[in-house]
Amino acid sequence: MKLLPEVTEAVEVLARTPELLDAWLIGLSGPWLHANEGAGTYDAVEVVAHLLDDEEVDWMPRLEIILEHGESQPFTPFDRDGFRRRFADWPLERLLTRFSGVRRENLDKLAELRLKPADLERTGMHPALGRVTVRQLLAGWVVHDLTHLAQIARVMAKRYTDTVGPWREYLGVLGDRERART
Amino acid sequence: MKLLPEVTEAVEVLARTPELLDAWLIGLSGPWLHANEGAGTYDAVEVVAHLLDDEEVDWMPRLEIILEHGESQPFTPFDRDGFRRRFADWPLERLLTRFSGVRRENLDKLAELRLKPADLERTGMHPALGRVTVRQLLAGWVVHDLTHLAQIARVMAKRYTDTVGPWREYLGVLGDRERART
Repeated sequence: MKLLPEVTEAVEVLARTPELLDAWLIGLSGPWLHANEGAGTYDAVEVVAHLLDDEEVDWMPRLEIILEHGESQPFTPFDRDGFRRRFADWPLERLLTRFSGVRRENLDKLAELRLKPADLERTGMHPALGRVTVRQLLAGWVVHDLTHLAQIARVMAKRYTDTVGPWREYLGVLGDRERART
Repeated sequence: MKLLPEVTEAVEVLARTPELLDAWLIGLSGPWLHANEGAGTYDAVEVVAHLLDDEEVDWMPRLEIILEHGESQPFTPFDRDGFRRRFADWPLERLLTRFSGVRRENLDKLAELRLKPADLERTGMHPALGRVTVRQLLAGWVVHDLTHLAQIARVMAKRYTDTVGPWREYLGVLGDRERART
């Protein structure tokens, strides 16, 4: 049975993120991996830990809540800093390996759900954002990966904000958010 | 002979970009590869073509101009849309393969230059930005990769700006530049 186009195109992006992160980050030196945008912001390793945390407790579990309970069971609130306890001191490679495994399991589950067009409009209750649909959740999952990929690029780039000198004018990423939650 | 730390850390990032782009983009469907941010902005394939163009005619040739001629020979101006003629109709895979090859050649050349600390302060003349140093050029080359990686994530994410519904509030990349040159 074919997947819905909405599912297929989400999976295209979601399936690539682990390998992309491996190619980008494995073997990078500490100064690149631990650059951040100031107190309370993520470095590249923390982004990976956060993505893993979300992968385990956020997107797929919430999709299952919608399909089983609709709006009657609000999603469990997500603790943005939960990863700091759950994965304290995990080295990058361990985080990446686990992220890759959990992502694959989730995409297998997603395929097995065999969502039908009407399922995309089913609704759940986000504890802060209110009513959301399955369609929105799938898109949010994809864009969440992409916002954090952009963040890794931005955070690494900002190590060199001063070093690039006059080139700064041409390098737009250096002017993007000074602090960013996502 | 060991490379300067400034060269080593630039190469760390520069060497990873081709493989990262392969993992991210090869096999993605047209709607992802050809999403852009409106007229005159790049889609992901155009970003790759632009990176290849820069790799052939911008960063490394300019470094060589500085080392051979100092400020006496201003850099050749870079045509931001030159890639549209040079690589018209090249499929993504061909662009990626060539980018990977030219990047590797340039990093080999960079190692062979055996830059010394004093070389980092040597100056050249940018046709628009004025006096620039080798140190700034190396950092600019790195941040140029990163700004375009952030751009690919941003452009792809914006396909779903409306689709994510209320999640938009949490997905910062959707609020980044509506039009971006770099």
